[in-house]
Amino acid sequence: MKPMEIRASCTRSVTRHPVRSLSERLADLIADIGDDETSDMYGQGPLINDFEAHVAELLGKDAAVFMPSGTMAQQIALRIWCDGAGIGRVGYHPTSHLHLHEQQALAELHRLEITLLGDAERPLTADDFDAPELGAVLIELPQRELGGILPEWQALEALVAAARSRAAAVHLDGARLWEAAPFYDRPVADIAALFDSVYVSFYKGLGGVTGAILAGPEDHIAEAKIWQRRHGGNLHALWPYVVSARRCLKLRLERMPAYVARMRAFADAVRDLDGMDVTPDPPHTNMAHIRLRGDLGALTQASLDVSGETGIWVGQRFREGGLFELSVGDASLEVEPDEFRALYADILRRAN
Amino acid sequence: MKPMEIRASCTRSVTRHPVRSLSERLADLIADIGDDETSDMYGQGPLINDFEAHVAELLGKDAAVFMPSGTMAQQIALRIWCDGAGIGRVGYHPTSHLHLHEQQALAELHRLEITLLGDAERPLTADDFDAPELGAVLIELPQRELGGILPEWQALEALVAAARSRAAAVHLDGARLWEAAPFYDRPVADIAALFDSVYVSFYKGLGGVTGAILAGPEDHIAEAKIWQRRHGGNLHALWPYVVSARRCLKLRLERMPAYVARMRAFADAVRDLDGMDVTPDPPHTNMAHIRLRGDLGALTQASLDVSGETGIWVGQRFREGGLFELSVGDASLEVEPDEFRALYADILRRAN
Repeated sequence: MKPMEIRASCTRSVTRHPVRSLSERLADLIADIGDDETSDMYGQGPLINDFEAHVAELLGKDAAVFMPSGTMAQQIALRIWCDGAGIGRVGYHPTSHLHLHEQQALAELHRLEITLLGDAERPLTADDFDAPELGAVLIELPQRELGGILPEWQALEALVAAARSRAAAVHLDGARLWEAAPFYDRPVADIAALFDSVYVSFYKGLGGVTGAILAGPEDHIAEAKIWQRRHGGNLHALWPYVVSARRCLKLRLERMPAYVARMRAFADAVRDLDGMDVTPDPPHTNMAHIRLRGDLGALTQASLDVSGETGIWVGQRFREGGLFELSVGDASLEVEPDEFRALYADILRRAN
Repeated sequence: MKPMEIRASCTRSVTRHPVRSLSERLADLIADIGDDETSDMYGQGPLINDFEAHVAELLGKDAAVFMPSGTMAQQIALRIWCDGAGIGRVGYHPTSHLHLHEQQALAELHRLEITLLGDAERPLTADDFDAPELGAVLIELPQRELGGILPEWQALEALVAAARSRAAAVHLDGARLWEAAPFYDRPVADIAALFDSVYVSFYKGLGGVTGAILAGPEDHIAEAKIWQRRHGGNLHALWPYVVSARRCLKLRLERMPAYVARMRAFADAVRDLDGMDVTPDPPHTNMAHIRLRGDLGALTQASLDVSGETGIWVGQRFREGGLFELSVGDASLEVEPDEFRALYADILRRAN
């Protein structure tokens, strides 16, 4: 069987949420839509505006705007801060989404200069701001490419203070902010309060179809809407994404502590397993980097075999060094930590 | 009652398609999704790629890419043509969507210079190319802001030839291209063949939720996907829009001649009505500009009263000069031309 056929044949999974068909996902949305709700139109209408107000309040910000993607939201935030400061330079860590996954949009589209801060191999710290004057700094919490790592609260305060000493504004890449809050045992608004503007996502941990929100001061968001139109993101209708985001936020935000606890229980269960490492250990969020000993091809084959035989999807996308990213969601809550250990012990045995 | 309450109370409409609730629209999508269809992921997957191939074939182009909006698709097409030609200047008519509704994105985001071609009061012609050398020209068919007007076929060929004499590439703003084809009694591919790249839309006449396609040569579309990512439009999932676009194209493309015929029958029915003008007359597409004699406030009130009393929505968004845009869709097919005449004769009587 092909990997995707094995995936489809599995009834359980150590990772993410249970797979639902597109029809089931649409039926979920129907269940969530009020009879009197109508389409938004170019960003206007109670369905979208009420949700924006709700998320602004959650984040403790004055205003918010729903956008199709974080790529769009973050470029816009950074452009506005730079224009306002009259400094066309942005600083971020070399593992930032903007550096790795956006085709250098900030340079190519917005003609902003980039200063990379810190070292790709380790998290950004307050010591990494030996930089020229910056229009804006982007800080990602948690740092996804490093296993979802977070600084302790005081280190975070020091980090933002250091960023402020070099930059006119500090923006939070909160792609996984919902997932980060349990680490601090604080409401997301406490974290967001350290930053001038915040982007949050509604797929990733929450499991929505797609969509993002940018939150910040009133005038910043008003200007962001103009840039959203320029980007081609002020769509005729965004309601399918908004309804999905609203549903998943309501359903899963309160489960984030349980996801994080399960990720930690998984790490506890394999800590003494030879040939398997979890980074960070203990995990800070619902995600971590798992590293398995063994040849990449052998690991992939062993994982597919174990998934096929047990009916539990264990992942199969290994990178260099036997590394893969594990994200805990609703499906993972149905896999007990000792079961988790047994699955990967089996993969290690087969691959080594 | 407020206008939107009157709208909601109407069971018929002279304009557009019947209003369906969001839940009904989602149920339509469920009916259209195959059991084995799965989500696209960042623009990849058979659901989105098969639809792109289908529309590329309809348009007679080598390749196509689905984007969230025409605003995004067209800026990208023009940027690529300009970069390729090494000429950072675009020409278009002053009533173009890019000039009126996109917050000067081409200048602000892409730093391209703009040359306005022709006169806002009349359609673009081959005589309007007294312009500097251009990287690209955008031609809109039909010209929406002028009532959905189209040049005759030979004039169109001359127009495109004139554009080519000044510009490295000629792009078609085909926001309403599906609606334009019956005028020429030719397949859309014949029209698209005159142009280097083409944008088409799936809401407007087709009635989809939102979404657009850019079609053109293979290398152009490959580069467009990179720019789409930069714009923040390479979304995690576009399937709700794609399924809606696919459904509405299948359902309504074949009805376009009927829509155009009904728009012409409406115009025939009111041609001798004093105080009512249709532009162009006869209409070229399923849309036209209607101009009613009378004070704006009186026309608005009369229209709302007539809608409320008859249960037939007649529109109420008048601009300066008593002008409004009428677009024929499925709902309009249920209103007979003599009924149409009686409704507007009644409005004119009440408002004058």
